Amino acid sequence: MRRKSLSGAACPIARTLDVIGDWWSLLIVRDALRGMRRFSEFEKSLGVSKNILTRRLHALVRQGILETAPAADGSAYREYRLTAKGRSLFQVLVALGQWGHENAAAPAGSRMIMVDREHRRPVRKLEVRASDGRLLGPGETMMVRIGELAGASNTNQG
Amino acid sequence: MRRKSLSGAACPIARTLDVIGDWWSLLIVRDALRGMRRFSEFEKSLGVSKNILTRRLHALVRQGILETAPAADGSAYREYRLTAKGRSLFQVLVALGQWGHENAAAPAGSRMIMVDREHRRPVRKLEVRASDGRLLGPGETMMVRIGELAGASNTNQG
Repeated sequence: MRRKSLSGAACPIARTLDVIGDWWSLLIVRDALRGMRRFSEFEKSLGVSKNILTRRLHALVRQGILETAPAADGSAYREYRLTAKGRSLFQVLVALGQWGHENAAAPAGSRMIMVDREHRRPVRKLEVRASDGRLLGPGETMMVRIGELAGASNTNQG
Repeated sequence: MRRKSLSGAACPIARTLDVIGDWWSLLIVRDALRGMRRFSEFEKSLGVSKNILTRRLHALVRQGILETAPAADGSAYREYRLTAKGRSLFQVLVALGQWGHENAAAPAGSRMIMVDREHRRPVRKLEVRASDGRLLGPGETMMVRIGELAGASNTNQG
């Protein structure tokens, strides 16, 4: 059921899906963003077999999302740390969390929500805005080839 | 390799992953957001077998992300249309596209980018902001149980 590789796709959404490889790997990134670094921590949080967890961690290292390093406490363990590329999945995780909060029910009482650490208030809903600041809905956006951009060759925004 | 259901998870990120079920299904949502409605359109865009596409479309209908309706042109075909729940995956797709644009290379010349229809300029990078407008990085956020929110019971933001 593994689909063909999308790594060469023109669409950046498809390329991201190809790099992540498996939805489930984003839960590792989520845990790493909240400070987990050790195999045993991920294992406890995710409740999966050592085999599968090992495979997923290695895939994330291969894709440059995690990197391994000696443990900060000087022990013999190695840690898994997010790279800059991995940390920049933050917006993806926030978007997934906000969608789940609004569209996927959970047992009352146990539901969690993302807040800012300082004030413990929910973060704002993500907004898609044009370069001039206008709020955009899906019908007001489109994908174009970079060569067809209006005006100059401004390609550093995505 | 199917992991345990995360539908009852306290974390809204995990619940979203459970609803979507398969990364690949997001490419159907992407195509629906840009106006595709017919089986044959999705088939052509995605290049997958009828069997697999049928299964994924049905799963998205079952999850309330797509709904079926008679074709707008009065023909015997049925169309697949996004529900409000489906359209609200927009931010997730934008986040995935922006990450791919910045972190997953593609053959030059074929790369696509999301623009606003009116001015054909790239949309702004998504920003995570606190309720008071401060820009937040991953280290400045955390997940808390809704009952532990500061102040009142403001739970309508996610």
